[in-house]
Amino acid sequence: MTVEMQVLQRIYAETGADALFLEQDFLRRYITGFYSTDGYVVYDGKTCTFVADPRYFEAACEQLAGSFVRVEEGAFERAVSLVAGCKRLGVPYPFVSRAAAERLEERGFALCDCMPALREAMKIKSPAELACIARACDMAEEGLLATLPRIREGMTERDLAAVLEYEMRMRGADGTSFETIVAFGKGSSVPHHETGDTKLRFGDVVLIDFGCKTQGYCSDCTRTFLFGDDKQHEDFKQKYALVLEAHERVKEKLVAGMTGKAADAIARDCFRAHGLEGYFTHSLGHGIGLQIHEYPVLAPRSEEVLKDGMVFSDEPGLYFAGEYGIRIEDSICLEGGKVRSFMHKTAHDLLIL
Amino acid sequence: MTVEMQVLQRIYAETGADALFLEQDFLRRYITGFYSTDGYVVYDGKTCTFVADPRYFEAACEQLAGSFVRVEEGAFERAVSLVAGCKRLGVPYPFVSRAAAERLEERGFALCDCMPALREAMKIKSPAELACIARACDMAEEGLLATLPRIREGMTERDLAAVLEYEMRMRGADGTSFETIVAFGKGSSVPHHETGDTKLRFGDVVLIDFGCKTQGYCSDCTRTFLFGDDKQHEDFKQKYALVLEAHERVKEKLVAGMTGKAADAIARDCFRAHGLEGYFTHSLGHGIGLQIHEYPVLAPRSEEVLKDGMVFSDEPGLYFAGEYGIRIEDSICLEGGKVRSFMHKTAHDLLIL
Repeated sequence: MTVEMQVLQRIYAETGADALFLEQDFLRRYITGFYSTDGYVVYDGKTCTFVADPRYFEAACEQLAGSFVRVEEGAFERAVSLVAGCKRLGVPYPFVSRAAAERLEERGFALCDCMPALREAMKIKSPAELACIARACDMAEEGLLATLPRIREGMTERDLAAVLEYEMRMRGADGTSFETIVAFGKGSSVPHHETGDTKLRFGDVVLIDFGCKTQGYCSDCTRTFLFGDDKQHEDFKQKYALVLEAHERVKEKLVAGMTGKAADAIARDCFRAHGLEGYFTHSLGHGIGLQIHEYPVLAPRSEEVLKDGMVFSDEPGLYFAGEYGIRIEDSICLEGGKVRSFMHKTAHDLLIL
Repeated sequence: MTVEMQVLQRIYAETGADALFLEQDFLRRYITGFYSTDGYVVYDGKTCTFVADPRYFEAACEQLAGSFVRVEEGAFERAVSLVAGCKRLGVPYPFVSRAAAERLEERGFALCDCMPALREAMKIKSPAELACIARACDMAEEGLLATLPRIREGMTERDLAAVLEYEMRMRGADGTSFETIVAFGKGSSVPHHETGDTKLRFGDVVLIDFGCKTQGYCSDCTRTFLFGDDKQHEDFKQKYALVLEAHERVKEKLVAGMTGKAADAIARDCFRAHGLEGYFTHSLGHGIGLQIHEYPVLAPRSEEVLKDGMVFSDEPGLYFAGEYGIRIEDSICLEGGKVRSFMHKTAHDLLIL
């Protein structure tokens, strides 16, 4: 699917450039829907052209036939020739390299940042984009459900990640949306734990933060559970219930029109009421789309207004260094002013394997 | 493992900056050996500091204790404070974003490109780096060997990729080094085929281009084989023998001191002798390390001189559009002036499953 023409025109108008000049994978994909490792998308306000090298030319022609995107064969020189009459090119400053920017400036172009306009547009997902994200979420959840019965004492974090990634792949995923985090025991207390060779033991807390991609779109999910109950988990169970309360309260109370700050506060206030806000060491959520970390940001200082069509994570957590950590995360969206979760196949109540 | 101090000093001296300022994952890893998704490595010619945020601080302190890398807790502001007295910062122009570069310029720093010096240094792998790449190659080959008996008629390209990635993971891989390419039948004639839902049929040509990572270092391997012999493959078998001849001749004839161009010509001349050079539509090889595509480049115009310690691919191929393609690829290195292959577990002779 291509972006809607009127959305592209709005991005163009807001950027104020004579042409958009995009050479980033995920931005080419956003505009054209076509995946390639190389290529250029150029839009001069009238014509949108995808410049594909010989490897991609035929497939691009086929996929983009009937769309507003013209396909031409070539590389950088061809793309530059399409904007020969332009003075100012819009390139995404956070993603274009200094070297690529200089290469354009050396040709006499002035540059401006098109990312603010792109970012605003990309925040609001089209129905087709929402459908992609929903599929990626289904694959992730179904992958986890197929993985649970295969979890065994003695397997390593990496083994578990291997099984989960396999199961997501077998359900149609094109790959993971980020490096799968599997943490056993006290490793769970590190929010960005690096999946390693720790072996699973009876009674371990297990935290899995995972997701996959389809047609470029990401899913993001975290589940925390117990591998057997060694009856020494009363404290953990209480904290789990609290994280779940925070997670669910966000789904209930978050409405369109709120700021990212206010959304974050829904969860943070739950923890504060128990004097535990100091253990919620990250923000509540981030936008999800063609990139795993997009906008909006749901964090204590975020003034962004949340709107229908936005997709983001609801991922409150508590981390007790050297002991354990808990995070419960769904990918959710705003629809009709309220939260709709993409995740409804896996349990949120505490699972004891 | 950290980079050797004398190598870091040489990079610094060649760059001619007052300090190196690195915020790219793979470059932080090259200097410190420590993996993180965020952070800064700063080197002012005397002190090398890794600025880690709270998520990584403790783990970094532990891993880097006893090394020449100091660890400090913080983020951008902390990193900038470490270079407060410097005028010129070396940043890697092909990898630093325009936005990140501007952020430094706004603080009054002049910038210069440290990537040429880094690239030269990174071309030559240390014994520890070679050992990592060798392990990544072992995992890839062993993963393929475990996958072959699981290949069944009717499975999709994506299914096969899922199994292979699982088997590499189970052997310790941290993930793939690029998106696994699995192509059945005529899909094999597209060098960058996108792994999809095509089902495997008896008699299909199967091309698999795959690799995995360990400690950040990549492996890269391609094998082409037949899924059953339907006795209609005489032409394919002849072409396979020719690609294998080109592949093996490179291993025999390539020696230190040659240019990338001369190396490429070894394979290209094999094809030319049979009037087939037009079907070898890409270059012979690319450097392999922390990135899947590094330097040197082994291509018709490459004047780079190949030296001991360099690691690169030997991947000649022939592609007959709409029919089939063949590529045979090993990750190899130069040692004692000659080629050593990292791949010796999987067969190079034509495999018929």
